[in-house]
Amino acid sequence: NTCSRRTTISMYGRYTQELGVYAKEEAARLREEGVRRPSVAERSRSLELLENDKGRCAKCRTQKWMYVNLEGNVFLQYLAWVTYPVVLITFSAGFTQILAPQAVGSGIPEIKTILRGVVLKECLTFKTFVAKVIGLTSALGSGMPLGKESPFVHIASLGASLLCKFMSLFGGIYENESRNMELLSVACAVGVSCVFAAPIGGLLFSIEAMSTFFTVRNYWRGFFAATVTAFMYRVLAVWNRDEVTITALLPTNFRQDFPFDLQELPAFAVLGIVSGFGGALFVCLNRQIVQLIRNQKTIKKFLMKKRLLYPALVTLLVSTLTFPPGFGQFMAAKLTQMESLETLLDNHTWSKQGIPEEFDSNSHSQAWKHPQVNVFVTLTLFVVMKFWMSALAMTMPVPCGAFMPVFVIGAALGRLVGESMATWFPDGVHSDGTIYPIEPGVYAAVGAAALSGAVTHTVSTAVVVFELTGQISHILPVMIAVILANAVAQSLQPSLYDSLIMIKKLPYLPELGWGHHEYYNICVEDIMIRDVMYITLNCCYRDLHDVLLAGHLKTLALLESSESMILLGSIERAQLQALLSLQLGRPRRLKYLRDRATAESRLSVVSHPSSEDGSTMVNQEIAEWEENQLDEQVNFDNCMIDPAPIQLVERTSLHKTHTIFSLLGLDHAYVTSIGRLIGVVSLKELQKAIEGSVAVKGVNVRPPLASFRDSGTSGTIMNNENKARDLHKLWNRRKSMSLPQEHRASDPDEKSK
Amino acid sequence: NTCSRRTTISMYGRYTQELGVYAKEEAARLREEGVRRPSVAERSRSLELLENDKGRCAKCRTQKWMYVNLEGNVFLQYLAWVTYPVVLITFSAGFTQILAPQAVGSGIPEIKTILRGVVLKECLTFKTFVAKVIGLTSALGSGMPLGKESPFVHIASLGASLLCKFMSLFGGIYENESRNMELLSVACAVGVSCVFAAPIGGLLFSIEAMSTFFTVRNYWRGFFAATVTAFMYRVLAVWNRDEVTITALLPTNFRQDFPFDLQELPAFAVLGIVSGFGGALFVCLNRQIVQLIRNQKTIKKFLMKKRLLYPALVTLLVSTLTFPPGFGQFMAAKLTQMESLETLLDNHTWSKQGIPEEFDSNSHSQAWKHPQVNVFVTLTLFVVMKFWMSALAMTMPVPCGAFMPVFVIGAALGRLVGESMATWFPDGVHSDGTIYPIEPGVYAAVGAAALSGAVTHTVSTAVVVFELTGQISHILPVMIAVILANAVAQSLQPSLYDSLIMIKKLPYLPELGWGHHEYYNICVEDIMIRDVMYITLNCCYRDLHDVLLAGHLKTLALLESSESMILLGSIERAQLQALLSLQLGRPRRLKYLRDRATAESRLSVVSHPSSEDGSTMVNQEIAEWEENQLDEQVNFDNCMIDPAPIQLVERTSLHKTHTIFSLLGLDHAYVTSIGRLIGVVSLKELQKAIEGSVAVKGVNVRPPLASFRDSGTSGTIMNNENKARDLHKLWNRRKSMSLPQEHRASDPDEKSK
Repeated sequence: NTCSRRTTISMYGRYTQELGVYAKEEAARLREEGVRRPSVAERSRSLELLENDKGRCAKCRTQKWMYVNLEGNVFLQYLAWVTYPVVLITFSAGFTQILAPQAVGSGIPEIKTILRGVVLKECLTFKTFVAKVIGLTSALGSGMPLGKESPFVHIASLGASLLCKFMSLFGGIYENESRNMELLSVACAVGVSCVFAAPIGGLLFSIEAMSTFFTVRNYWRGFFAATVTAFMYRVLAVWNRDEVTITALLPTNFRQDFPFDLQELPAFAVLGIVSGFGGALFVCLNRQIVQLIRNQKTIKKFLMKKRLLYPALVTLLVSTLTFPPGFGQFMAAKLTQMESLETLLDNHTWSKQGIPEEFDSNSHSQAWKHPQVNVFVTLTLFVVMKFWMSALAMTMPVPCGAFMPVFVIGAALGRLVGESMATWFPDGVHSDGTIYPIEPGVYAAVGAAALSGAVTHTVSTAVVVFELTGQISHILPVMIAVILANAVAQSLQPSLYDSLIMIKKLPYLPELGWGHHEYYNICVEDIMIRDVMYITLNCCYRDLHDVLLAGHLKTLALLESSESMILLGSIERAQLQALLSLQLGRPRRLKYLRDRATAESRLSVVSHPSSEDGSTMVNQEIAEWEENQLDEQVNFDNCMIDPAPIQLVERTSLHKTHTIFSLLGLDHAYVTSIGRLIGVVSLKELQKAIEGSVAVKGVNVRPPLASFRDSGTSGTIMNNENKARDLHKLWNRRKSMSLPQEHRASDPDEKSK
Repeated sequence: NTCSRRTTISMYGRYTQELGVYAKEEAARLREEGVRRPSVAERSRSLELLENDKGRCAKCRTQKWMYVNLEGNVFLQYLAWVTYPVVLITFSAGFTQILAPQAVGSGIPEIKTILRGVVLKECLTFKTFVAKVIGLTSALGSGMPLGKESPFVHIASLGASLLCKFMSLFGGIYENESRNMELLSVACAVGVSCVFAAPIGGLLFSIEAMSTFFTVRNYWRGFFAATVTAFMYRVLAVWNRDEVTITALLPTNFRQDFPFDLQELPAFAVLGIVSGFGGALFVCLNRQIVQLIRNQKTIKKFLMKKRLLYPALVTLLVSTLTFPPGFGQFMAAKLTQMESLETLLDNHTWSKQGIPEEFDSNSHSQAWKHPQVNVFVTLTLFVVMKFWMSALAMTMPVPCGAFMPVFVIGAALGRLVGESMATWFPDGVHSDGTIYPIEPGVYAAVGAAALSGAVTHTVSTAVVVFELTGQISHILPVMIAVILANAVAQSLQPSLYDSLIMIKKLPYLPELGWGHHEYYNICVEDIMIRDVMYITLNCCYRDLHDVLLAGHLKTLALLESSESMILLGSIERAQLQALLSLQLGRPRRLKYLRDRATAESRLSVVSHPSSEDGSTMVNQEIAEWEENQLDEQVNFDNCMIDPAPIQLVERTSLHKTHTIFSLLGLDHAYVTSIGRLIGVVSLKELQKAIEGSVAVKGVNVRPPLASFRDSGTSGTIMNNENKARDLHKLWNRRKSMSLPQEHRASDPDEKSK
């Protein structure tokens, strides 16, 4: 009939849920006439009414036009289906690439790193904001299996950061750095909670995914912000007359008095374990694809030249395979993600005794029914195809996340298990007379929570599911499945976000896995660098110069003397550069030249050297003057010294070191023995030590974000970029900057790469 | 009719829900015959059936006997109603007092302090465990308005701690201190979640109430443990055939398709604000009662002599006022807490247009109906009376909490608002034709979450309500009310647990209030103690001796010399005591005497002094020997020195200091300036500085737990108690221990007390 065909057309490359919106509008109108809030089936019926009411809106007519024009011509239909997403994705990739490459990808890894204490300046600029918003909009509009949850987190963080910058113009509390961090962590909760209208789940998810340690006094704030977000999101629907009051986003109608039977628990447990393996596989697959592309030199070279080709090719592949009249008909490809989710959570059984039930002919659920193939095949194909498609789509250089696709795949997996259970036990598993049929929708909810929990290593996806569906009665199955899925996934793979951090080589400290006793046995002295760069109180400018050239540590240890080795504090690199700059800089040099000129003018009556000789002489003299200046002793009087850098003891365990580093967001810590400096341990050594004992293998290529990370790390300190530039001018005689000492001392293997 | 009278009898001092259990058993039996799970009303009907089935169980007959014997005789009924709780409470108070006074009270303040890093050894002993379990059981059995949630947290922590001790016998990971802390924080989640069968809410509540900073890697563990707890708790009900499957503890049946109208939100907000004031008032009232009793010297003196009189008097007062045929009839006093809660969450309106509706004559709800007084008066009386009764009952020296009573009072307050709304808007507030009547039960749920959230300063009570009722559709009203209640309560009073910590003067760091800009302006140098006790590398034993006598700081700073003031590390008091003990102790003294005897024996041929002279001589010589020994320089070679104590800078802000202290669980930190020690700041100064700026007034009496706290704080370090005792023997010449230097330096006001 016409309605289903219209639905098909509406899906040609469009992500928006306009039809659903019209349906709801119509439903709202009907409701005003005294009709109760319609179920999915009722809504579809109202769609039919909509058919007879064509004149009402312009957009409808446009769609109608498209449908009439392309009907019957499969090739044109295919062209429309494929062109639309390819154009959108290419635009998204190109726009992001040009405006702000940092906007590419999920954003959660970067925010996680920033919350850890490392400043990635470029991640929180207005440019990135614009690139992320526009890039994300067009990427989502393409209808590719991409998520919006993680980019929303990035966008919310960008918003918070820009708000902070704006407010700090007026002074006050916003100038405080730690205050801004608090705002940032609250922003993450907001980002997640507005996708599902799930304030509690959003807050908890953001805590789990983003933080290592959580400040409980921020909890209240996150709760407040997330509630306001969810409220605004849902109240807009009421004001738009889409909904009659505030309800859950995808309200379900599962049986409440007998939510599940105890004997179903093993099935839920199996679903959880399968999801755990699935989640680990997803993370692994995603990383393998990235590695394959980067390690294959020919592919890499080709793609580096044609940057937009890769996303276009991927989009072409995915949209060809999902073309509804083609292969897509076997995997309900004409439904959007939200529609798929809605149908998967449906509380009717789709199949009884293996024979597909008759669906309400107008509901979206019909998309899962195929005349030749039964619903199990459709569901299996959906799970398998979407699985690799999502993992592949995530590698495109557009702003995108993976949460939503994984959530939908999990729901389909759960539905598959649920339908199987319903076929296996057509009268339910309850033995005591009353028949409580199995509800596959519950399995879908459980599967969604379990798979998304496994991929992200979080358990709060359970809460997201409750808030999304508005039902909490099946809490135990969901939690059991989520916990089992986490147990399996965490023991096999890092979380998706940690995997992305590894791929991007962001300076993030990995989590301690559980049950690793060696954390308590490895000590700081086993991993520290003993050859520490330091300056002493009585050093001369030449030492300063040498130390600054030898490495680019952002802070340097200040010792009493090289004999006593007593640690007095640490000085920032920029401070030292300023000192050196002051000593050798333009003002003093000019003064010297002036003084010399005055002295010479007295002698000028005696000799008149040629101008060429003069300039050589001047150069020679300046060089000599510089050498003399460098031999003077450094005056630390006006220098900002941190007199209490964090110190550890040789025997501090790796576990405790990790805790201190995570808690205080440290970059490095000195190791002392009764006041004497004996070593230094930085994030890098710690990272290596933990990854070594956890035995997780990173990706050994230099990723696009690496350069950006280098500047980020050192950039935290270089507030005074002008001074640094002055110094570089001074030092332009020596062209080659040597590797940082830290690397040389600790990474003999790095040279062999 | 007989049934309602039976209910009355069954309540005479009994906390258990036996009747409910029988009803459910009966219902389960009926269900086997093909009947669906009954609602509250149906359950009551099954009670009637139970009446005709008297022979089935022995307990029923006992109750029957009591009922027949006391019927008609109001005086005897009163005697039974009053004697039962008085005996139980007196037993509980006496038993706890004798076995382990630490088991008194809620337990959450102590656990919070322990999690903060302060060891309160006596709190986690097997004795305390036994006292808490038995004391709590009899206290709850009394039917007084006492809660079990917080004691359950203490019991779970005790369980975890004892498990750790037991497991550490087998060695391995359980010997690690920080691992035990992790187990302890998980135990708290377990304690809360098993009361309401609310795993998520329980975990979140325990995090909010217990921690300042939360380790996210513990989240997973808490989730797991809490789920297992809730599962076991509810699955036992299924195995007992009380329930047919696992459901929420108090399942409600609120309307799901239209949970609330947007126009009701102001009412929910008002309820939240009122709850906020109520919560603050509760905390204040509770503290005022404690202060009144302690500051009134005559009352205090009298009660100190007759320790069991106070609880007995309080119980007598409360149970007299709640006697059902007396004043209790106006406040539904015959219902237990759980029954009250069940009726308050009922989704039927009790009153329409001010006229009470006809209740199902057999349901518990009937208790709220009185022939002369309408339901508003009953509810108001319930709220007012229970409010002060709970605040008073909490001050009794028995193991008890306040969460459950406050939760019920909140539900009643909500119900009151809900019934008023229902009377005001009999056809609901929805303007668009369809009638959606107001559901007062939703208001009860909102009120319960808001008031308990306000008293405990937590927002996760919202989640507890969802899990308790099994419905999440009214999420927004609950969250708005909880947030508003928290905002009001937090700006007026500390949380109940912080208030108890203040009353008990536990060494806990207060939270930073929000919006106090001065935290960023006050610096460590403003609050630090400048007159630091220290020892130097080249000091002699006499200095050591003097320093040890001068104060009882648990660690002492070790400086290079008193001229340079360079901080080299810190030494524990016990280490120094051991050093001194070694120098002056028995073995060396005996050796000296032996040497002297050998030397004398050579001279003995010359002179034969009398024995009296000899002993005087020996004493004199030992004194002289000791003086010589004390003048020797200390050898720190075998002494354990902490070479990296936490150091702060003068300009560290109060905010940052608080963060570092909370994060690392510090007791004190040294303040240094370029390696030189210039001051020390301890928990105490920080506490004072924060309380000063927050302007929260503590209770200035020495509470029963204070002594125990002193030993607790110093006990963390004195592992070597024998050595300490040896030292005391050595020093028995000097009787009076002076006050610790720290106090003298910083607390001039303390002397005036």
